[in-house]
Amino acid sequence: MRNRFDRQLQLLEEELTHMGELCEVAIANATNALTEGDLEQAQAVIEADEEIDQLEKEIEGLCMKLLLQQQPVARDLRRISAALKMITDMERIGDQTSDIAEIVISTRRNTPTQLKKLNEMSVAASKMVRDSVTAYVEKDLELARKVMLEDDTVDQYFDEIREELIAFIKEEQGNKGKEIFDLIMIAKYLERIGDHATNIAEWVEFSITGSHRSEVV
Amino acid sequence: MRNRFDRQLQLLEEELTHMGELCEVAIANATNALTEGDLEQAQAVIEADEEIDQLEKEIEGLCMKLLLQQQPVARDLRRISAALKMITDMERIGDQTSDIAEIVISTRRNTPTQLKKLNEMSVAASKMVRDSVTAYVEKDLELARKVMLEDDTVDQYFDEIREELIAFIKEEQGNKGKEIFDLIMIAKYLERIGDHATNIAEWVEFSITGSHRSEVV
Repeated sequence: MRNRFDRQLQLLEEELTHMGELCEVAIANATNALTEGDLEQAQAVIEADEEIDQLEKEIEGLCMKLLLQQQPVARDLRRISAALKMITDMERIGDQTSDIAEIVISTRRNTPTQLKKLNEMSVAASKMVRDSVTAYVEKDLELARKVMLEDDTVDQYFDEIREELIAFIKEEQGNKGKEIFDLIMIAKYLERIGDHATNIAEWVEFSITGSHRSEVV
Repeated sequence: MRNRFDRQLQLLEEELTHMGELCEVAIANATNALTEGDLEQAQAVIEADEEIDQLEKEIEGLCMKLLLQQQPVARDLRRISAALKMITDMERIGDQTSDIAEIVISTRRNTPTQLKKLNEMSVAASKMVRDSVTAYVEKDLELARKVMLEDDTVDQYFDEIREELIAFIKEEQGNKGKEIFDLIMIAKYLERIGDHATNIAEWVEFSITGSHRSEVV
């Protein structure tokens, strides 16, 4: 029984890792679609979001099966409940990459946008997602806490990008306000991705320590 | 058996109506918290979002019970599947009201903001939510289609508000860019609420006609 349970737990970890990888790829592709003005890639991000949604349902089903059939307690129970919460955050990350892709498509942006800072922010947010899922699989409390601290960096990027782009709106003489607002929105979505990765890290902390810092479990 | 099923379907309708009402109240309160600069009311909106999340879980449980115990077919099956989809959109509406409330709190806005158009937009979005849920309960296809058309009005409000506020950013001599950007974000969240109400209306149409206009069911 225990062996079967362990195998199912391992399957759960593999599926979570896969879902995390899909999120990472989606973040990279959405940002790339923006900077390269690649509408096809943007469309692919929206389609990949459906795959992420589907995977959430699958993992949810697996968790429910584990909970009902195995009636786990203590740490196992926490690991499965944490997984159930984590996939909600990952699914939202998928939504946000899809939101970014929709902006790219709706503006029919076919000229590349050079935004060094937005790219850096995207890399930082993506790393938070990867590290939070790795922290779950490796049961690495230190890495989970590193992710929580990293959220400040992503927030900082957002503040700077917003400030710079608002200044740009004020200065530019043309009619680019809407387009620039869209770029701030994209930074906002990346900032939210950082928030979700932080939530994931908090659930990892809960699964290891048994206490959760903000939410009532 | 059929009577019991009918009673459970009625309970489902009542809970959906209740969830819709909570969403409506949240939209009104979030907008009011903004215009009155009422931080306590903003906090209450965030707490009400948790109630909406809770209700989603309850209704989801009820739908699963109905599906498993009653094995419904045809129209009954469509009504229950539609309900399952609708609550996801309502839950997102709750999130968006919470997002608005968080902006009100984070800006510590304690001076009332007079924004006639934003209030009108809020009323229009809220009405879409109410009408979409009413259309489900009353099985009113015409009302569902009216909601879908109404989304254009809400989108129009968003375009106008964004345009006016971007012009305001360009004109104002002070340092209000961030604050004005936040107001555009709030309009964006209201626009998304309209999108979710449209999704709900499309699920109502599906539950009545058996065909869905955009999503693969």
